[in-house]
Amino acid sequence: MNCGILNTLGRFDPITGVNWNRMYHFDETVIAPFAQQHIDASQEEIQASFQQLLIDQIEQKLDHNIWGITTGQRIAYQLQLMAHQADLVLDLHTGPISSKHLYCPEYIKASASYFDIPHTIFIPNDFDGAMDEATFCPWWSLQQAYQDLGRNFVMGEGAFAKESFTVELGSQEQIDLDVAHQDALGILSYLQYKGVISGNHYTPQKMTRYGCYLKDYKALYSPMGGMVDYLAEFGKPLPAGEPLARILRMDNYCVDESANGDGSGSPLHNICLDRQVLPILHFASASVNQGTELYKVFQDYFEL
Amino acid sequence: MNCGILNTLGRFDPITGVNWNRMYHFDETVIAPFAQQHIDASQEEIQASFQQLLIDQIEQKLDHNIWGITTGQRIAYQLQLMAHQADLVLDLHTGPISSKHLYCPEYIKASASYFDIPHTIFIPNDFDGAMDEATFCPWWSLQQAYQDLGRNFVMGEGAFAKESFTVELGSQEQIDLDVAHQDALGILSYLQYKGVISGNHYTPQKMTRYGCYLKDYKALYSPMGGMVDYLAEFGKPLPAGEPLARILRMDNYCVDESANGDGSGSPLHNICLDRQVLPILHFASASVNQGTELYKVFQDYFEL
Amino acid sequence: MNCGILNTLGRFDPITGVNWNRMYHFDETVIAPFAQQHIDASQEEIQASFQQLLIDQIEQKLDHNIWGITTGQRIAYQLQLMAHQADLVLDLHTGPISSKHLYCPEYIKASASYFDIPHTIFIPNDFDGAMDEATFCPWWSLQQAYQDLGRNFVMGEGAFAKESFTVELGSQEQIDLDVAHQDALGILSYLQYKGVISGNHYTPQKMTRYGCYLKDYKALYSPMGGMVDYLAEFGKPLPAGEPLARILRMDNYCVDESANGDGSGSPLHNICLDRQVLPILHFASASVNQGTELYKVFQDYFEL
Amino acid sequence: MNCGILNTLGRFDPITGVNWNRMYHFDETVIAPFAQQHIDASQEEIQASFQQLLIDQIEQKLDHNIWGITTGQRIAYQLQLMAHQADLVLDLHTGPISSKHLYCPEYIKASASYFDIPHTIFIPNDFDGAMDEATFCPWWSLQQAYQDLGRNFVMGEGAFAKESFTVELGSQEQIDLDVAHQDALGILSYLQYKGVISGNHYTPQKMTRYGCYLKDYKALYSPMGGMVDYLAEFGKPLPAGEPLARILRMDNYCVDESANGDGSGSPLHNICLDRQVLPILHFASASVNQGTELYKVFQDYFEL
Repeated sequence: MNCGILNTLGRFDPITGVNWNRMYHFDETVIAPFAQQHIDASQEEIQASFQQLLIDQIEQKLDHNIWGITTGQRIAYQLQLMAHQADLVLDLHTGPISSKHLYCPEYIKASASYFDIPHTIFIPNDFDGAMDEATFCPWWSLQQAYQDLGRNFVMGEGAFAKESFTVELGSQEQIDLDVAHQDALGILSYLQYKGVISGNHYTPQKMTRYGCYLKDYKALYSPMGGMVDYLAEFGKPLPAGEPLARILRMDNYCVDESANGDGSGSPLHNICLDRQVLPILHFASASVNQGTELYKVFQDYFEL
Repeated sequence: MNCGILNTLGRFDPITGVNWNRMYHFDETVIAPFAQQHIDASQEEIQASFQQLLIDQIEQKLDHNIWGITTGQRIAYQLQLMAHQADLVLDLHTGPISSKHLYCPEYIKASASYFDIPHTIFIPNDFDGAMDEATFCPWWSLQQAYQDLGRNFVMGEGAFAKESFTVELGSQEQIDLDVAHQDALGILSYLQYKGVISGNHYTPQKMTRYGCYLKDYKALYSPMGGMVDYLAEFGKPLPAGEPLARILRMDNYCVDESANGDGSGSPLHNICLDRQVLPILHFASASVNQGTELYKVFQDYFEL
Repeated sequence: MNCGILNTLGRFDPITGVNWNRMYHFDETVIAPFAQQHIDASQEEIQASFQQLLIDQIEQKLDHNIWGITTGQRIAYQLQLMAHQADLVLDLHTGPISSKHLYCPEYIKASASYFDIPHTIFIPNDFDGAMDEATFCPWWSLQQAYQDLGRNFVMGEGAFAKESFTVELGSQEQIDLDVAHQDALGILSYLQYKGVISGNHYTPQKMTRYGCYLKDYKALYSPMGGMVDYLAEFGKPLPAGEPLARILRMDNYCVDESANGDGSGSPLHNICLDRQVLPILHFASASVNQGTELYKVFQDYFEL
Repeated sequence: MNCGILNTLGRFDPITGVNWNRMYHFDETVIAPFAQQHIDASQEEIQASFQQLLIDQIEQKLDHNIWGITTGQRIAYQLQLMAHQADLVLDLHTGPISSKHLYCPEYIKASASYFDIPHTIFIPNDFDGAMDEATFCPWWSLQQAYQDLGRNFVMGEGAFAKESFTVELGSQEQIDLDVAHQDALGILSYLQYKGVISGNHYTPQKMTRYGCYLKDYKALYSPMGGMVDYLAEFGKPLPAGEPLARILRMDNYCVDESANGDGSGSPLHNICLDRQVLPILHFASASVNQGTELYKVFQDYFEL
């Protein structure tokens, strides 16, 4: 008898429920004033001063204040302090049961093809608390603030040569050192492309790379509780109407199905969508409640 | 040997970390258009039509959509559907280890004194996802939208006679039927005041009632991990400089204290504030991490 | 960042830690007296009276007594009440991450080959609290008690035609309806062999079936904490000296390895055994502590 | 809304469910052979040789063996290695919500009155895996083995001057440094009595001290699930028929009670016993299942 599994997702504090990955800081109100005050500054001056402003803000947050800060905020701010001092930031993650995928800012789409990762989510200049956003959103916003004032910079170049990615390396409960080696080669390929390492030893793998915009990266929530047979394979386009999963309702096995003609009492339920999608990850347990996040998928995706 | 306690706070989904109490719906964008379209409507018409609009929005959310909704959203929307059909909404809660306290909208301060609850937090017209806010914020916003159009209504009267409270009834792991009886009398006192029940059987208890604004209801996070001796009593003003708690660092008992003169290696640390506060609740466990929410307190409080 | 996973094994009560599968009842002291009192009874009488004795004992346990019984005991006794009324008992289980295996009493080895399960553990007449043991141990003990008195019965025949198995159907977080169908065919094959269903529709699959004795079904505990790359495949004989797993110590990656010549500071550790084994299951997480059960394996196994 | 609390009891490994406090080692089979081999040895020789035997056994267990040992075993054996080298062993514990109580071997009843603890459980020479038993059971068994061979020693004196207690210092989530100071004085009083510290500075407090035998230290399991109002006070004799607790069944509040005359549908249930008891501890949460351990109490207790 296996009565139940409590599998907490590691990205949440098991006591307070806060998502460790959404506690980073970004204060948009400082952007426009900075641009106005440094309207004529050189790129070097802009880079140095703005970076210092970001660091000062975090140090202010971390500094002892009378009320203290939460455990998660302290961790996040300490990581962010390191991140603000770098030009390239890679936040390495794993997911529950997951294919490899990459979160990449929209302004540096070309970089995505240097990793050996087949699925990329392009994210806009909206801040939702994540590390990658906390790193590039201030600079992107600054570039736009200058643009509003009539001074044009190119994101990803000069003072604005900031790149930040969340690199999702697959399932969190699977360690495979051969796969890890391959992951490392992909990261080296990106770093060589950016000139962090010299030479031309690393070539990104040839593969079909799919991308979609963050707004099209969709979660599918289970319409009912039950046991789940996950059917859809990661990274393989699933036609409209094909089942992503079958949900098994043990409690309906003994029910006289003729009783309700609508099929709601059936022991097996196919979960389908009315459009083609690309499955990226699914829940870690075969036992779900009504409303559990079953799958995350790309819709309206495209080849890079 | 008792190596550890995992005491998850009940208001969070233990799997996904979402706070069950912050999933309610409020769409501010519908307010101004409604006021414009119903600028000359009678109060009866306003009440009926706006209530229907709120209900329709929730039903739309609950309606089967292709991607589904999360477990917590489904529960919240079903509760909200009931709440939108009522004039008075009481959301009964308990906390970890807690005194009794009341969340009350600022526009109906007088109502707070009819409950037998000594501490009241007055909340503004900001929506942060809670049930009480989800109930009164739409009406308050509507009243303001009419005001912007030159038509003045009084919040808490006529079509706008909506009241909503979160009633915090103390510690969640303590059931005392005598106290529960007293709590019930306080609620009856409020309901009699509002005319829900007739007669004059119920009189609120004489007690000193303290209030503060939501912005002054502060959490104090632990500056270090350790074992906590909670010293400050709930509901008793604590002078500036008096310790709220003592934190015991077992790991420092064997340290030669002369080694570092700043006291950081001391086994005992008093946690004080530089201002007078009124302690309201504290954490449920004696074992805390750096950053754990130790106490919640009123600052800048006043007598009602 | 994924800071931690709490994956409780479902066979334990998450509050009290009791193993749901080890709460069944067997009181050896009633066996010898029963045999003496029924020394000349017919097999029909023995079967009926002894079964009634077992049922009476459980009902006595379940009956309201002044101190009550634990949650787990109540569940176990209710299941056992059902089991004592059957001749054949199949207790269907799943494990963390696991191959299919069968627990089979030593006296009915032939039955093991009718299931489509490649690995069988033969269990002696020792009671350790499990459902299968609770079902056959009383009868086996009774047969031995009669033997001591000079009356010989054959276990598995006549009054003693009791068979009981724990059928481990693989990994608990994997639902695959095609595999489930295959599992069902194997169970039907066994039931047909025992005459529960008639005909000859079901033939056990041809496969190499391995067995070992319970004393040779060994757990391997991790010699250190770390991240685990599970290398050994289930059901495939692993030669002595070949690694079952590699343990990755991230904390040792930055250490100067020349510092300690014994390799204890190495980031990679192969976990090997000095004898050939047959891997059956492994732990569900890639993150382990020193002392976590890494693998369970057959040693001194043989073909059936 | 507070939907649920998962409060794991700290004495269980949250992953594997093993009770950290029941993993100590005692091998009774070595006792009789030792007594025979050392039948004429001096008390000094007996003490030194037997202690070395106990230590050797633990070191053998801890020594690297091919299969390893579990996390809990490693911790237990390391503690036991320390304990075997001492004459007096105090295992300091706390419980869920609990009065202070003491586990004391039957052969040294007099020692119990030197602690400032009002409730003592006297334990016999049976080994159930606990630290205190693991410390004194070998010596008690050895004394008995010598007695069987005609040589009489007094437990608690000479080579057998071994004392071991589990000191339960109250509720695990309550830290009170004033109470801790009082606890320390009681322990010093015992140590002074045993001559570990000299002088006569410490006098045990005058108090009514109650004792009972381990067999009379009883757990009461809840006959139903519900919300619990714990009524019985710790350390205060509760007459037969007086309620220990009231269980509140919210689900029965709306039921027409006239429907079933037996009261089973009543919203309130008093939990009583048919004999006088002394309540010692109760469960930590107000929410219980059928079968949750509600209270532990002394029956057939007496004054020391």
